[in-house]
Amino acid sequence: MADAAIKSLDETLEKYIPAQELAEVNRILYGRRPKPLDVPVAALRLAEVGGFELRAFTIGAAPEQLRPPRLVRVGLMQNRIVEPTTAPVAQQVSALHKRLASMVETAALCGVNIVCFQEAWTMPFAFCTRERLPWTEFAESAEDGPTTLFCQELARRYNVVVVSPILERDEVHRDTIWNTAVVISNSGAVLGKTRKNHIPRVGDFNESTYYMEGNTGHRVFQTQFGRIAINICYGRHHPLNWLMYAENGAEIVFNPSATIGGLSEPLWAIEARNAAIANHYFTCAINRVGTECFPNAFTSGDGKEAHCEFGHFYGSSYVAAPDGSRTPGLGRMNDGLLIAELDLNLNRQVSDHWGFRMTGRYEMYAEELARSVKHDFKPDIHK
Amino acid sequence: MADAAIKSLDETLEKYIPAQELAEVNRILYGRRPKPLDVPVAALRLAEVGGFELRAFTIGAAPEQLRPPRLVRVGLMQNRIVEPTTAPVAQQVSALHKRLASMVETAALCGVNIVCFQEAWTMPFAFCTRERLPWTEFAESAEDGPTTLFCQELARRYNVVVVSPILERDEVHRDTIWNTAVVISNSGAVLGKTRKNHIPRVGDFNESTYYMEGNTGHRVFQTQFGRIAINICYGRHHPLNWLMYAENGAEIVFNPSATIGGLSEPLWAIEARNAAIANHYFTCAINRVGTECFPNAFTSGDGKEAHCEFGHFYGSSYVAAPDGSRTPGLGRMNDGLLIAELDLNLNRQVSDHWGFRMTGRYEMYAEELARSVKHDFKPDIHK
Repeated sequence: MADAAIKSLDETLEKYIPAQELAEVNRILYGRRPKPLDVPVAALRLAEVGGFELRAFTIGAAPEQLRPPRLVRVGLMQNRIVEPTTAPVAQQVSALHKRLASMVETAALCGVNIVCFQEAWTMPFAFCTRERLPWTEFAESAEDGPTTLFCQELARRYNVVVVSPILERDEVHRDTIWNTAVVISNSGAVLGKTRKNHIPRVGDFNESTYYMEGNTGHRVFQTQFGRIAINICYGRHHPLNWLMYAENGAEIVFNPSATIGGLSEPLWAIEARNAAIANHYFTCAINRVGTECFPNAFTSGDGKEAHCEFGHFYGSSYVAAPDGSRTPGLGRMNDGLLIAELDLNLNRQVSDHWGFRMTGRYEMYAEELARSVKHDFKPDIHK
Repeated sequence: MADAAIKSLDETLEKYIPAQELAEVNRILYGRRPKPLDVPVAALRLAEVGGFELRAFTIGAAPEQLRPPRLVRVGLMQNRIVEPTTAPVAQQVSALHKRLASMVETAALCGVNIVCFQEAWTMPFAFCTRERLPWTEFAESAEDGPTTLFCQELARRYNVVVVSPILERDEVHRDTIWNTAVVISNSGAVLGKTRKNHIPRVGDFNESTYYMEGNTGHRVFQTQFGRIAINICYGRHHPLNWLMYAENGAEIVFNPSATIGGLSEPLWAIEARNAAIANHYFTCAINRVGTECFPNAFTSGDGKEAHCEFGHFYGSSYVAAPDGSRTPGLGRMNDGLLIAELDLNLNRQVSDHWGFRMTGRYEMYAEELARSVKHDFKPDIHK
């Protein structure tokens, strides 16, 4: 397919542009380039056997007198579904559990402290179909569903924080379905959950057929390794969503996503990176990879014939830093684990330098925004 | 200098990457590529004689049944100062008037409807010095200063809207100085003025020594060719600033700037483009070009020796569209005029498709933001 012709943007640039000019191209495109991080041979071997890309980088900060470096290693996973969408639900889920277990094992060998999986990671992204069964059967309790129990076991075994974005079934509230990320402490305890705040009505992303806008606000989770938040998928298009996680103290915001080439690819490198810049924190953009085919053909609201394929999820997961720099992306076609060692001291250093929070005038905006949402708002237009 | 080694990022990519792969690289980096726009030979000749780059593109939209295309041509100017910073003030201003007059004449030959000059275009960006005289002498009345009179004459002669960002002296308010953009209708009337909302305290941008945060809100100007707003320079780092221009109905937001290579270059291509995406409008990012040298050496708050140079303003002006696409940038080293024909129908088409405004939940954010700015705000942190 056309949109899958390049395996990785960064590889293509490296292939053709001579070294000295490449350094300048990379500086202009990406800022200060993160250094590669060494990983154990055993991890490389696991990745090779498992058939997934493994890349690792470190993003440092200046030394300070009063604070030692606050290093944390994050692991971003992107993966295809393992079983066909026609396999029994339990079999699909269990195959994905197994797949991610091997990636988490690899991450743990590399000293990763926090892992985050892609959006709705236990299932195909079936919302394009608008069918209920069997897809709603993938929804689970955030507190004690099989996937949460599985992640708790991973967290304890490898001493990692696990961010597990699932389709949630909320039985307490009469079987409501949500798009939710569960955060599990490295102790194995469920730290809490946070729901997708903005729900797309675009292309085949018919998610509003299944669940509503999240009601958990912009909570931040204090882990042993830093304060994290999760902005799920479409929420990356909403700068205020990113901002409120910052206001609540987030140091790293994960953006587990599922998005396809024709729709969003030119936006992908922009939005999470802009959020890191604007909010003085790290962002981790994670996208599903591969093409998913469903048993019954569906239409796409574009007048074209019914078809069974969703489109190509282009992966390209990356980490962006508050100074505007970013890691290279994982590939567009393959499963991958991206590891980044981050010195969280960089956030405050950049904030002290650029001062976007200090100069933000949020009080004025709170008032302006409160006015502009009123039904009888009069825009300030000068003629 | 190191940061000026590449004349243009786009040219470098074109030079080395084979055509088919270049198309994919461009799609991933920039989205749908704008088509080149033909310009009259007389305009090319003027640009050649004047020694400035001239590039022109068109960004179309789908045909609609009830609305004809709403085509507008914008002209973005980037230029070096003409006279040395030691020349008499009046001479510096008048040389810049002359320089821009020839660029506006060229733009007019190309059918441009709205032109926008760079930030504080009548002067060197002298705020690094922290000296008052002679630099504050560049400040003028927005209503009837010599530069506004000059722009009114241009507007009438060429039937163009002129956006003229100047250093303003506000005599009504006891000689207050502001960083202001004056908007002049194609009829020659002053439509109004709008002030820079966010003032940097970073690097050598000691602007807060000279003027305060603007008090004109987020007004939008209804011109014959569409509704425009002006987000001056550092305001591009503030997503709420961009948002409020959208709330007031802006269809094109100009971002006249002055920013240097070492500081912001990797952010440059991100922020105005993110704003176009997030707010369903066009953005025009304009940056000064060249290196400015001042008579008295100054320090930069970085512990290094006093020096007379500010750093390299890297130009690279570009236009971004609401669908995430953008034009190539002007060069990093040279004066230039970038013309873009925009179909403003694209804004509503993209809004109807992506729906960020509809899904934006601004009422919730107005409340959250009002809470978070309180001195006794308790962040929502889960432990």
